[in-house]
Amino acid sequence: MNPDATRNDIIRLCKEAKENKFRGVCVNPLFVEEAHKQLEGTKCSVISVIGFPLGASLTGTKVEETRLVINLGANEIDMVIAIGALKEHDYKKVYEDMKEVVEAAEDIPVKVIIETGLLNKTEKIAGCELARRSGAAFVKTSTGYNTKGATVEDVMLMRTVVKDEMGIKAAGGIRNLEKALALMMAGANRLGCSASIAIVTGSFKMSSMIKHVQIQQNLKKLRICMELVQLPCRTTN
Amino acid sequence: MNPDATRNDIIRLCKEAKENKFRGVCVNPLFVEEAHKQLEGTKCSVISVIGFPLGASLTGTKVEETRLVINLGANEIDMVIAIGALKEHDYKKVYEDMKEVVEAAEDIPVKVIIETGLLNKTEKIAGCELARRSGAAFVKTSTGYNTKGATVEDVMLMRTVVKDEMGIKAAGGIRNLEKALALMMAGANRLGCSASIAIVTGSFKMSSMIKHVQIQQNLKKLRICMELVQLPCRTTN
Repeated sequence: MNPDATRNDIIRLCKEAKENKFRGVCVNPLFVEEAHKQLEGTKCSVISVIGFPLGASLTGTKVEETRLVINLGANEIDMVIAIGALKEHDYKKVYEDMKEVVEAAEDIPVKVIIETGLLNKTEKIAGCELARRSGAAFVKTSTGYNTKGATVEDVMLMRTVVKDEMGIKAAGGIRNLEKALALMMAGANRLGCSASIAIVTGSFKMSSMIKHVQIQQNLKKLRICMELVQLPCRTTN
Repeated sequence: MNPDATRNDIIRLCKEAKENKFRGVCVNPLFVEEAHKQLEGTKCSVISVIGFPLGASLTGTKVEETRLVINLGANEIDMVIAIGALKEHDYKKVYEDMKEVVEAAEDIPVKVIIETGLLNKTEKIAGCELARRSGAAFVKTSTGYNTKGATVEDVMLMRTVVKDEMGIKAAGGIRNLEKALALMMAGANRLGCSASIAIVTGSFKMSSMIKHVQIQQNLKKLRICMELVQLPCRTTN
């Protein structure tokens, strides 16, 4: 999430999201109110990040932040887990941190960002399992800020753990149509990227060229799961 | 601030800070309690970051976070300003954001991170002037996370604005003794760097070689203003 974004940047972001019928826009708490104002009456959700991008704030702060952004109009919450606690196998702490945010969000869906690029396989599995038990709606791969972003391998592993009980949001380093399609094939049903417009434009172009029903359906499926992220993504894969 | 740091990393950080008699350790909120435990009874301060590293959380969240970390033992607060608001010249918002954190911190000193690398000259001056009026104790150049870190030119400009009324903390991209000394000469009286040990070791080595009172005093002055940061700094200059 671009730290020097201004209100005008958010207004432009929301306009682009509406025009392209994206699933939502993902913004910093500071801009939830403006995004809500811009998107009211549309099907486009306002997604706010919580404890972003380090996840190393206190649970109490995450809970308070969750309540505040929901009051300002956030329809979805993307929270970063306590990564350090997961790495030292303090599962209780990781779980309670998620759980308290999920409870504070009430009927607003919570996506739990496990930051796969900083985790080994065991930690990824544990993160997904804890997220599943916490009542979160989605697990999400990455913040786009720390080391690696979404990979096909990670999404497949995450889908194996959460089965069909949760959504999976892939984010970080998704810069083209090929990567976006691969991640969906691997099990992602939500994609967060700042390159969403380029990807969707590419998908429309392909749609008009390839006269094959299944492929057109796949491209349509891709479009309706796209979020537009106010973020200069730092990660590459 | 390394997002995958564990308790053991913090214990090691505090041990190093004590051994080298650093001014303090700078940690994420999640580790304030542990750092306080490790440093109790020493002269080494526990510095917590607030709204870090984007500054784009709500004022209410920053205030709550400030109260929570102070209750857990933080002796100093390094807050990131609302960078977007500064860039759109919403000085009232920037000021109130700072002011509320300063008030919530009561007698605990607050350093205001203006993130010079994302600002033009006018914005840097405005950021410093607002910080001065807010009652903050220090202005600080950078988070070390977003684009450029501390430069000699920025520190000189900041000193021109805040005169002797505030401290100046230079942080971000300070990787060697040369840079550290230059920033102090430019007007910084606090340095935050993850390479603190290497720099201080270098300063001791110089101290033993150069038998000149003024230089030895300069090196001593350097050592007592060093903070050890739990941070893989992203910025270069």
